[in-house]
Amino acid sequence: MIRIAVDGMGGDYAPQVVVEGAVYAANDFPDLEIVLVGQPDALKRELNRHKVLGGKIVLQEASEVITMADSPVASLKKKKNSSIGVSIDLLKNKEADAVVTAGNTGAAVAASALTLGNLPGIKRPGIAISIPTPRGISITMDVGANLNPSAEELLQYAIMAEIYASTIFKKKRPSIGLLNIGEEESKGTVVLKEAYKLLRDSDLNFVGNIEGRDFFTGKVDCIICDGFVGNVVLKMCESVLENSIEIITREFKKNPITLLGAWLCKPAMDSIRKETNYEEAGGAPLLGVNGTVIISHGISSAKAIRNAIRVAGSIVERHVNQNIVDRVESHPNGSSTRRPEGNQT
Amino acid sequence: MIRIAVDGMGGDYAPQVVVEGAVYAANDFPDLEIVLVGQPDALKRELNRHKVLGGKIVLQEASEVITMADSPVASLKKKKNSSIGVSIDLLKNKEADAVVTAGNTGAAVAASALTLGNLPGIKRPGIAISIPTPRGISITMDVGANLNPSAEELLQYAIMAEIYASTIFKKKRPSIGLLNIGEEESKGTVVLKEAYKLLRDSDLNFVGNIEGRDFFTGKVDCIICDGFVGNVVLKMCESVLENSIEIITREFKKNPITLLGAWLCKPAMDSIRKETNYEEAGGAPLLGVNGTVIISHGISSAKAIRNAIRVAGSIVERHVNQNIVDRVESHPNGSSTRRPEGNQT
Repeated sequence: MIRIAVDGMGGDYAPQVVVEGAVYAANDFPDLEIVLVGQPDALKRELNRHKVLGGKIVLQEASEVITMADSPVASLKKKKNSSIGVSIDLLKNKEADAVVTAGNTGAAVAASALTLGNLPGIKRPGIAISIPTPRGISITMDVGANLNPSAEELLQYAIMAEIYASTIFKKKRPSIGLLNIGEEESKGTVVLKEAYKLLRDSDLNFVGNIEGRDFFTGKVDCIICDGFVGNVVLKMCESVLENSIEIITREFKKNPITLLGAWLCKPAMDSIRKETNYEEAGGAPLLGVNGTVIISHGISSAKAIRNAIRVAGSIVERHVNQNIVDRVESHPNGSSTRRPEGNQT
Repeated sequence: MIRIAVDGMGGDYAPQVVVEGAVYAANDFPDLEIVLVGQPDALKRELNRHKVLGGKIVLQEASEVITMADSPVASLKKKKNSSIGVSIDLLKNKEADAVVTAGNTGAAVAASALTLGNLPGIKRPGIAISIPTPRGISITMDVGANLNPSAEELLQYAIMAEIYASTIFKKKRPSIGLLNIGEEESKGTVVLKEAYKLLRDSDLNFVGNIEGRDFFTGKVDCIICDGFVGNVVLKMCESVLENSIEIITREFKKNPITLLGAWLCKPAMDSIRKETNYEEAGGAPLLGVNGTVIISHGISSAKAIRNAIRVAGSIVERHVNQNIVDRVESHPNGSSTRRPEGNQT
């Protein structure tokens, strides 16, 4: 049985929504065991509101809470018994197979890096988010763990994103694009030009540079970028369709004819909302750390938490991390910035 | 009379669309004189298709063309008589008051930097784009001239964007936001943390860090960022509403009821398309160079070129560059990273 530690105190609506999501997951996925981590009284109070039909939920005490406003590293040092820290410890000690948290992202990344370390051969972990596009799910990595990646780190993000896309989203030979300010190889910063060469010379399905306009079209399966621009873009994506629908709705209400039209269109609008709903993806794995950690949005709903738990289970079940290690070890073309060793003799 | 040099050969649809836009501008703004720069035969052929009612269009020969694919600096060196190079020379020699180009952005930026130099006190020029939002126009700077600005350069972008917003878009005490990955002062790169302090201590109307989700809401009048993320975001903005409308239209067509609804809604959709049309803004000034240079999108329509010429005229007429110089010189709080001079004695 796969055990998922869920940070019960992390998130804007924790513990209420997180516990609700954990209950949904326990009922829907009886093969998973959920370890709810946090203040027992608060968690029990929420658990008592729900009926756990199948599956299994156990509690693990963690007396402290790292808030969204806390400084990540400082708060981890100060609050030794935080729900995120204890969750990661469970993973480290093999008392859990994966962690799901909707809490302070910086603290989750820092706790993972400090406690778990990186997978063998991986230089820096990154967050891989899945974004719905007209051509299906597209992965963007990194979206906030590494603001200044090196060229080789970007190459490793491409390798990890490719494995995530093929293993979890069943993409065949996923296409990889490097986010840049123009399609030509000569565009962008020194790091991006170097990353372009590494990707071109790798055995990945690299299609070249892509631009901001390609985010919503699903032009490539995996978009590789630094964590700063990835984070900005992710937050734009989250807000954009909702804003478009808001503008459209306001315009529709300006006269009775278009208002009637809008009423007739409502089912179509609802369908779009559902199709592009970020709840479906639920969470984003921090790939490259030595363990499975899923970071969910702070405003996650119960449904989003449930889906993040589902994704965590799939990543464990399908051995995504072992695939990454094998790939980095065995495919020199996919990870080598090393000079051929013969040159040194 | 204000003279605007228009790069007749620059842009994906040059010279045809550029000449058409220049004719519109000449007819609509009789106070402007247009100097069309490029290959005379090609320009004359296009001019002969149109009727120039009012205003004045003159031709200036430039035998060479820098294409969109050319490497900016190398092509400027090789093609000494390019339409963009000659246009900038006219500006330098005071034979024109401003330049409008829809050609190779890198070449336009490089020619401006090399030939015109910077305004006194300005460290690096940047491109300021105006984006329509539900609360009116919002300025984003930089969107591609400077991929790695220093903190002080970001502060200067804030000063220039503020002057542009107040002078051209009549914003009163424009609000300034620094694009970051979180609202807290501690977020982001070392450069952004330093820029936050400079902005906070300036006499600008700085409201703090903003995030990707704030682009479409018009939360602030001026968004300050590096040219890499600005360029990615700009290209996303350009594509996003069009993509949303496409998804919505496709969904509407799925059944007869929603299709009827969509037909009734058409006037509202058209109104939104018009409201968010980038043609209206027409172009983006390269602020900080010693001269007025407007960079238009390569795919600019004739209407977009016309509007870029209008903006160029307004920037000259309202002395935006002199305002920038005065401001940087006279407001130490708005530009001082200098230590108080007394400390040195």
